[in-house]
Amino acid sequence: MIRVKIFLAVFLCLIFTGSGYSQSHPRLVLTTKGVSDIRSNLKKSPLLNQSLREAIADVDKDMANGIEVPIPKDMAGGYTHERHKKNYLTLQKAGVIFQITGDQKYAAFIRDMLMQYAKMYPALPPHPETRSYARGKIFWQCLNDANWLVYMSQAYDCIYDWLKPDERNVLEHDLFKPFADYLSVGNPQFFNRIHNHSTWGIAGVGMIGLVMNDQELIDRALYGLKEDNIDKDKKDNDGGLIKMPGQTGAGFFIQLDYLFSPDGYYTEGAYYQRYALYPVMLFAESLENCRPDLKIFDYRNHILSKSLFAILNMTDSEGQFFPINDAQKGMSYLSGELVSAVDIVYHFCGKDPALLSIAKKQNRVLLDNTGLSVAKGLSRGLEKPFIKKSIELKDGPKGDQGGVGIIRTGMPEDELCLVMKYTSQGMGHGHFDKLSFSMYDKGKEVIQDYGVARYVNINQKYGGGYLPENNTWAKQTVAHNTLVVNETSDYKGDSETGNKCHSDPYFFNVTGKGIQIMSAKDTTAYPGVSMHRTMAVIEDKAFEKPLVIDICSVQSEKENQYDLPYYFMGQVMNTNFKYTVPDMLSPLGNAYGYQHLWKTGEGNTADKTAQLNWFSNERFYTLTTLVSPDDQLLFTQIGAEDSAFNLRHDQGFMIRKPREKDALFVSVIESHGHYDPVNEIATNSYAGITDLNLLINNKKYTLISFGDKAGNRWTLSISNEDALAGTNHTIELNGKTYTWTGPFKLTNNE
Amino acid sequence: MIRVKIFLAVFLCLIFTGSGYSQSHPRLVLTTKGVSDIRSNLKKSPLLNQSLREAIADVDKDMANGIEVPIPKDMAGGYTHERHKKNYLTLQKAGVIFQITGDQKYAAFIRDMLMQYAKMYPALPPHPETRSYARGKIFWQCLNDANWLVYMSQAYDCIYDWLKPDERNVLEHDLFKPFADYLSVGNPQFFNRIHNHSTWGIAGVGMIGLVMNDQELIDRALYGLKEDNIDKDKKDNDGGLIKMPGQTGAGFFIQLDYLFSPDGYYTEGAYYQRYALYPVMLFAESLENCRPDLKIFDYRNHILSKSLFAILNMTDSEGQFFPINDAQKGMSYLSGELVSAVDIVYHFCGKDPALLSIAKKQNRVLLDNTGLSVAKGLSRGLEKPFIKKSIELKDGPKGDQGGVGIIRTGMPEDELCLVMKYTSQGMGHGHFDKLSFSMYDKGKEVIQDYGVARYVNINQKYGGGYLPENNTWAKQTVAHNTLVVNETSDYKGDSETGNKCHSDPYFFNVTGKGIQIMSAKDTTAYPGVSMHRTMAVIEDKAFEKPLVIDICSVQSEKENQYDLPYYFMGQVMNTNFKYTVPDMLSPLGNAYGYQHLWKTGEGNTADKTAQLNWFSNERFYTLTTLVSPDDQLLFTQIGAEDSAFNLRHDQGFMIRKPREKDALFVSVIESHGHYDPVNEIATNSYAGITDLNLLINNKKYTLISFGDKAGNRWTLSISNEDALAGTNHTIELNGKTYTWTGPFKLTNNE
Repeated sequence: MIRVKIFLAVFLCLIFTGSGYSQSHPRLVLTTKGVSDIRSNLKKSPLLNQSLREAIADVDKDMANGIEVPIPKDMAGGYTHERHKKNYLTLQKAGVIFQITGDQKYAAFIRDMLMQYAKMYPALPPHPETRSYARGKIFWQCLNDANWLVYMSQAYDCIYDWLKPDERNVLEHDLFKPFADYLSVGNPQFFNRIHNHSTWGIAGVGMIGLVMNDQELIDRALYGLKEDNIDKDKKDNDGGLIKMPGQTGAGFFIQLDYLFSPDGYYTEGAYYQRYALYPVMLFAESLENCRPDLKIFDYRNHILSKSLFAILNMTDSEGQFFPINDAQKGMSYLSGELVSAVDIVYHFCGKDPALLSIAKKQNRVLLDNTGLSVAKGLSRGLEKPFIKKSIELKDGPKGDQGGVGIIRTGMPEDELCLVMKYTSQGMGHGHFDKLSFSMYDKGKEVIQDYGVARYVNINQKYGGGYLPENNTWAKQTVAHNTLVVNETSDYKGDSETGNKCHSDPYFFNVTGKGIQIMSAKDTTAYPGVSMHRTMAVIEDKAFEKPLVIDICSVQSEKENQYDLPYYFMGQVMNTNFKYTVPDMLSPLGNAYGYQHLWKTGEGNTADKTAQLNWFSNERFYTLTTLVSPDDQLLFTQIGAEDSAFNLRHDQGFMIRKPREKDALFVSVIESHGHYDPVNEIATNSYAGITDLNLLINNKKYTLISFGDKAGNRWTLSISNEDALAGTNHTIELNGKTYTWTGPFKLTNNE
Repeated sequence: MIRVKIFLAVFLCLIFTGSGYSQSHPRLVLTTKGVSDIRSNLKKSPLLNQSLREAIADVDKDMANGIEVPIPKDMAGGYTHERHKKNYLTLQKAGVIFQITGDQKYAAFIRDMLMQYAKMYPALPPHPETRSYARGKIFWQCLNDANWLVYMSQAYDCIYDWLKPDERNVLEHDLFKPFADYLSVGNPQFFNRIHNHSTWGIAGVGMIGLVMNDQELIDRALYGLKEDNIDKDKKDNDGGLIKMPGQTGAGFFIQLDYLFSPDGYYTEGAYYQRYALYPVMLFAESLENCRPDLKIFDYRNHILSKSLFAILNMTDSEGQFFPINDAQKGMSYLSGELVSAVDIVYHFCGKDPALLSIAKKQNRVLLDNTGLSVAKGLSRGLEKPFIKKSIELKDGPKGDQGGVGIIRTGMPEDELCLVMKYTSQGMGHGHFDKLSFSMYDKGKEVIQDYGVARYVNINQKYGGGYLPENNTWAKQTVAHNTLVVNETSDYKGDSETGNKCHSDPYFFNVTGKGIQIMSAKDTTAYPGVSMHRTMAVIEDKAFEKPLVIDICSVQSEKENQYDLPYYFMGQVMNTNFKYTVPDMLSPLGNAYGYQHLWKTGEGNTADKTAQLNWFSNERFYTLTTLVSPDDQLLFTQIGAEDSAFNLRHDQGFMIRKPREKDALFVSVIESHGHYDPVNEIATNSYAGITDLNLLINNKKYTLISFGDKAGNRWTLSISNEDALAGTNHTIELNGKTYTWTGPFKLTNNE
């Protein structure tokens, strides 16, 4: 039956195009059977049809400009860069359109443009811009050349059979083979890495190899270069080591072994995971089509599917990725890379109906078999909600290098979400943010992670590249909602040291009644300093919204200054402590990001708790924190020493303990009330928690209690040294006995 | 036929309630016929039904708490204030629900609560909070007591016939009559004004008069107190004069004569127009129902209808009011006041189908005849789009006190809108912002008007009242996008002087091909200084989006410092001039709002134009401005001397001409390009206008030209002294002759 269909498809192709190609191409992302299926289902699949129409509109618009293949010259954002980028995007689509519609003008356009590249490429020196550790030829870095090859190999595949043999000879001899060689043997420091850059190189080389049936290139992509002579200390432009310490081997399988943790977490964070997923998924699809014997989607216990589910869980309620590490805010699962990943995983990995609900929001599909599957699923109404639950994603190839904890409560449209980071460094794009967190409410940031200091592809801003302030501010510890010791950053801001270290998960429990809680420790960030942070989300009908509890303890043998910033979003409403604002603003410090913070206010209090109440997004928030009279309560604003206005001038609140050995920060963050600007009615605008107490804090135990206006009282007990579920704990305090089993217990009015 | 219906209605009422009331009440907002119509149409009118169900849910929830009539004590935001406010809102709705459903529990609830008020009121002293110029008894100011009466008179009307005569006697004798007296004869400085406060007083007194058929109260409301003995210099809390200079008479008709201009513009601006419209419209509806002989909706050439259309035109593309004068951002035509006004004007003033499209967005209707009309119209699909066009709204009772000019282009979802203010002062809530402007694009602020420094009804912020920074910052000239002379404000910040003055419209022309333009002058704000500002929106297929032109000239006999700030929203991308940022931030000045501005950067240029390019809301913007090397180009940030974080810390750009007699500012503001954070593609991120020239500027003429990258060139010629449409102008410059007819001409490539 399948054979009959293939026969029919081929027959139809012949009718459509009138050309004499065989069934051997396309074979990469499209297949001859896939094209036939798409053609016969086009009318029945509105989303597929719409995606095709959008592609045709895009390509026709670009084709109307004629072919431009300029001599490479510019950086990202500049003319030649953007033109070559547009060229590969257009040709990839044109190839698909040719296959589906049979309209030869698209094939001819691809051929003619590729011929111009073939004419230019052999004499092309490396790109004149020299700042990359691996200069490309078409673009300033091999990475972008590899992007080109991933897309162009698809375009070439689509017209392969349509071309005359001597045309293919020219393209392969003058363009594709030397192009693939330049990216691999010509730049081993680019190709033989375990890194998002090399996923592109590997996919490009492998995909063109599959199109040309060039076994040498295919093997190079799957297994890496046998020799690379890369110095073990060599670094890339971001300061990351080229070779991962202990790296043995390279190529696609090694990437899949090392890039993702067993939970599918990618160590650079979601933003780069998205970027790496596109070539990984496309190459996997190509392999599944050309080399089904490899069973690539089964590899490493379905790691490809896991990596997609991991990244989908690292999104806020609007689908935007948590901006961990170098990540530009706004990027989401609506991106093209995620469209590919969702469609490919849906099609090849069991047709999970929850993925259809993501595809529905994406509102476009790949123009291939996988997109057809998704479009069919949607047109049949098979989708089910993608429920994002609280989840811990472990980091590291073996899952033993820390992780990310995500706690969620409430319905998606009114979700409160807490993200805590206790991963490894995350390579060159990692931030020095051990035990940091961020908090979301109703899909908006309440306590923000700054993200990257970069405007990707906006030429005015340093060619769209990383801004200097990314190193001096965004990566630094003080730019995050976590502890800073003595105004320095974790590992003194040294990535190389950081890359050898990771925090340790202590416990993660989201099954308790009314409480979800996560806890992690770090002993690596500051020599001689141990940090332990526990964060919980507590739901109780006594509170309007869930409460966030933050317990951050630090131990050291010598006295230090401890700073804990909270980058809250919104307008300060009031505080329960007095503060003064300076007549002139000065930077809070002179290094490790402190030079970028204006000190905008300063206070302290003799009360045992300080409260900061603010307003954002029609809701009120209150941070209630335990303080001593010596603690400094600082208001800050980002933007000092910002000579080109590269930073967002957002504010922060910082609790400073000037001289302590062991210290404890305990805070409750409440989301409460509502303000309606149309009816001008404020409800529940003051905090519900009126009282916060530390019962005990020692090496073994931390017990806190808090109470509300109505006289309710809660006690949270934590075991600091034993996270085993079955251990019994007993402690007597002021004549009262507290007993519990496992690492924590929440009690109410006991 | 009508009589038959009324008979039936009464008959039905009798059946429904089993009570013996006559047809004389309700008569105010509801009528017996109206109730009958609503009942019979409820099932056919989904929106009416929904509004009723929402009202029932609200009232039931509040009734479940029982009746609370606490002794008055608190300010706005505090318990007793919010409780009494909630009481009148609930009773008004309960009255309507009783009438429509006939469920007597609502009537009983109203009676019982009113009885508690009747018990408390006679012995009640003025409210303990003494800060108002007209203290209330239930609330801290008469204004809120008047709100109470407007709502409660409706509730009383609904149960009037249901009550026993002796119950009515108690309520009228102990509560309503003394309440109305206290607001009128008891507080003439509140009642006999021409002001939004007194519209509430008048409506409350008039409406309860109509319910009780008390001719004395009705006459008082319509014609004011005959004697008030108010000192002509007496002021209210906002610094506004109690009596308008030259005011003769008071009461409702005088309000309608003086509050609105012939175009329907209310001198305090849209935010307060909304506030005043509710009592005005409700009282008008009540009069139309009880005293149709007055033909109130025909009064002053349909001024009530005009005032609604004026305010609807003073909204951005999301329906939010332009925040002119003291106005909290976020208030929109979705507010309850506008629901009333739209429904009432629709019903009584010709059933304009464009109003239905506003009502559709409001998604609720009044539960009376007017709401029924709207609901019927909507269920029949009669709505037509409400097209907001460019419009000039003149200010002043006679329309001769300046005005507001609004220029719009494009479809609502992608509209560019320019608002220029050349009104009179706008009484106590007026800002010192002569010839200021604001600019919107895609429904978002691009160049913002700060609005008010206040968080209305948010208790933490100064009891929800005006913040001190409203006077020291928000009202000051430098807080606006207009010229500041010698670091002082218009009229040296004196409202009383300001209230005697206004700017002058020069011309407003929105019928030209490719150009809409407005021009106004002011000679009052600074003694000895004449200002003339012309703003245009130019559309040409050579630009991606419309251009904004801003020509601001100033003439003086002595040297002054001239500052022109632009409060642009978004992130600075780049400039074509060099600037430095200070190591420490100091305030830009020490008075008139300058004390609240940090100076965050400073530059200048030897080029004849300075360009500032910024990014906001996925779009790029560029301000290109003519400068001389002596001009200082300043970056500022709001927030200095902000000891309670009461201000938004937004940024500005300021062009300073340190010492000039006559000076000219010429700028082009472009909206261009797009940035898509999901695809990370920036298009057209640089300005299109590369060249800006002044050809001549003298008393008679100003001619500028500007050109784009493609070599196109435009010339804009303006006659500065003769705005007549028919005058011919000729001027020779550098051997070229420019001729045109009327006050302006735009030419392209001539």
